[in-house]
Amino acid sequence: MADPETRPTAAALVIGDEVLSGRTREGNAWHLAKTLTEIGIDLREIRVVADDREAIVEAVNALRAQVDHLFTSGGIGPTHDDITADAVAAAFGAPIGVREDARAILEAYYAAGELNEARLRMARIPEGATLILNPVSQAPGFTIGNVHVMAGVPAVFQAMLEGLRPVLKGGAPLLSWAFRVAAPEGELAAPLGALAARHPALSFGSYPFYRGGAGSTLVARGQDRAALEAAAAELRAMLAALGVSDIAETPPG
Amino acid sequence: MADPETRPTAAALVIGDEVLSGRTREGNAWHLAKTLTEIGIDLREIRVVADDREAIVEAVNALRAQVDHLFTSGGIGPTHDDITADAVAAAFGAPIGVREDARAILEAYYAAGELNEARLRMARIPEGATLILNPVSQAPGFTIGNVHVMAGVPAVFQAMLEGLRPVLKGGAPLLSWAFRVAAPEGELAAPLGALAARHPALSFGSYPFYRGGAGSTLVARGQDRAALEAAAAELRAMLAALGVSDIAETPPG
Repeated sequence: MADPETRPTAAALVIGDEVLSGRTREGNAWHLAKTLTEIGIDLREIRVVADDREAIVEAVNALRAQVDHLFTSGGIGPTHDDITADAVAAAFGAPIGVREDARAILEAYYAAGELNEARLRMARIPEGATLILNPVSQAPGFTIGNVHVMAGVPAVFQAMLEGLRPVLKGGAPLLSWAFRVAAPEGELAAPLGALAARHPALSFGSYPFYRGGAGSTLVARGQDRAALEAAAAELRAMLAALGVSDIAETPPG
Repeated sequence: MADPETRPTAAALVIGDEVLSGRTREGNAWHLAKTLTEIGIDLREIRVVADDREAIVEAVNALRAQVDHLFTSGGIGPTHDDITADAVAAAFGAPIGVREDARAILEAYYAAGELNEARLRMARIPEGATLILNPVSQAPGFTIGNVHVMAGVPAVFQAMLEGLRPVLKGGAPLLSWAFRVAAPEGELAAPLGALAARHPALSFGSYPFYRGGAGSTLVARGQDRAALEAAAAELRAMLAALGVSDIAETPPG
């Protein structure tokens, strides 16, 4: 794993019965994972829980204590099953109510008479929170402490995350060097394990695939480009010694 | 939520750095979610953790105490980063070593001389576990206590889950009735919330979409078909009263 002293850490909490029932294939955590890797923040854990107040409160409190940033997705719309804002407020023991700046955003967006009581729930913001603006459909998210509360609709989640970028300071980005080879991982495992043991500052993964025969993608990851280059040269020599010739390399971009 | 007295519960634990780095879009938890809904088992939580022994042990012990079935995905291959079997054994305080029936399966599969030390690691099974057969690539998973340890490769995960079906007893399946309508959820939220309050034995979700204008999918879920039919009739009347006419209904199959 990367050095915790130089890279901030994060967790994701996805909230929604529709994910646990299989109705929806979740994609926000995947988008977040790619974005955080780009920024240089280590995503340590993803959790998915139901639209259940107690489950949300417990997960928020467990995760926010463990990482630098907790990102939540889902449950901040206008309907009765949107309980994330209230649950996050409860997790912090913070009062929550309609906030005037959030109400003003919604008033500017909706036509006269359209801002009904249900929609006004989307202006409920815990005390002490900062708004996360929503350029897609206006109803804001918010940051309280180290918790960033965002929408579940993918386009809105992505836009909110873009809005947060300026406050997300990353460490050195994690570079990866991939070797896709036409050899089963069981034949590479021993020398790969030995190579990994010689490079404790890097991490090495092996991912099998079965398309036109058994193959493996070996991935070396680390923050130090020179160390990664040295490991890639060793990997190349290792594959040559094993007689593996059909290799597709993807060095860091 | 469904009645915990009549439906068994489950959790999923996905293990893999490649998911947390965004390299891989995870799909096994989604497949599991759909399968468990079909069987009549409530998936309560999904967690994704890194290839990190301590993180795996902690998650296994936390989740197996909370649910009837815990399903894990990933980390049971032949390479140095495949540490799930050992971590699960540690979580149970169970000894682990190469088991003869698992070794026999691998010996029958690999040609003479191919079953090297790395591949033999896939026959490491905690004491007291039952094998989960793998018709795709033979290396077995296992069940220990209420924990089902399965592969991360999707085809293998799916085949192992099929093999487990006979031991997965479900409660009454969760039926769902969906109404896809061309109206924003903010206009439906108040009457929907009132309807949900009148049917505490059912659960109601609302999922916005933005394709050719703002729309919503309202979903009623429950185990009692007659109660669901009554709620669907009320939903239909509610939408008519609101003047919403463009409705696509999907009743339970």
